[in-house]
Amino acid sequence: MAKTAALPPIVHPELDEITVEGVLRALADPVRLGIVRQLAAADCELACGALTVPVTKSTITHHLSILRQAGVVAGRQEGTTRYNSLRRNDLDTLFPGLLNGVLAAQR
Amino acid sequence: MAKTAALPPIVHPELDEITVEGVLRALADPVRLGIVRQLAAADCELACGALTVPVTKSTITHHLSILRQAGVVAGRQEGTTRYNSLRRNDLDTLFPGLLNGVLAAQR
Repeated sequence: MAKTAALPPIVHPELDEITVEGVLRALADPVRLGIVRQLAAADCELACGALTVPVTKSTITHHLSILRQAGVVAGRQEGTTRYNSLRRNDLDTLFPGLLNGVLAAQR
Repeated sequence: MAKTAALPPIVHPELDEITVEGVLRALADPVRLGIVRQLAAADCELACGALTVPVTKSTITHHLSILRQAGVVAGRQEGTTRYNSLRRNDLDTLFPGLLNGVLAAQR
C-alpha cells in the first residue's frame, strides 16, 4: 500500500504581503464569497467538509487555496482535517470596513 | 470630411442591478483602482484627460466602461468631453464601508 505523502505546510502571507487588489480579486467570485460568508457567520474554524458550496471537494480546496494566498482565510491542519477561518482581524486592520461592506451586501 | 457619429448614450446600472461581486471584480485591477482613488480624492467630476494613469486613452476608456457597468463610476457627456465621477453614495448605501476600506489600503 502506498505510504501517505506528508501534506505540504500551509503558507499564509504576512500582513505586509497582503494587498487590497489581491483581496478584491479573491473575493470577486461567487463560490469564494459563499465560503467567506459562511466562515464569517460561523465565527469559528470550519472544516472543509462543513462548508456548503455547490462544487466538488477538489474545487473547494482550490478556492480555499486562492483565499489563503490572498490573506483572506487561514488554514490549520489537524490530522487529516483542514480547518479554515477568516482572517477578520488582519483584514479589518489593513482595510477597515472592507469586509463588513462585502458581508453587508444582499447580493 | 466624415460626419462625427453620435456617441452612444451612457448607460448606468440601477441600484438594484449592482452586485458586490461585480463591484469587487471591477475594483480588482491596479489601473481601475488608480482611477477610483483619483476620483475619490478629487471628490468631483473628472474628464478622462484629467486622470493620471499609465495607459493609453483607449485603455482608460475601456477601464472606465468596466467601472461604469459595475456601478462604480458615473459618466456624463458634455460636448466632446466625458466627465466621470464616483458613485460613492450609491456604493455606501449598498455596501457600507466597502469603498472606504478599499481607499484606506496603503497598497
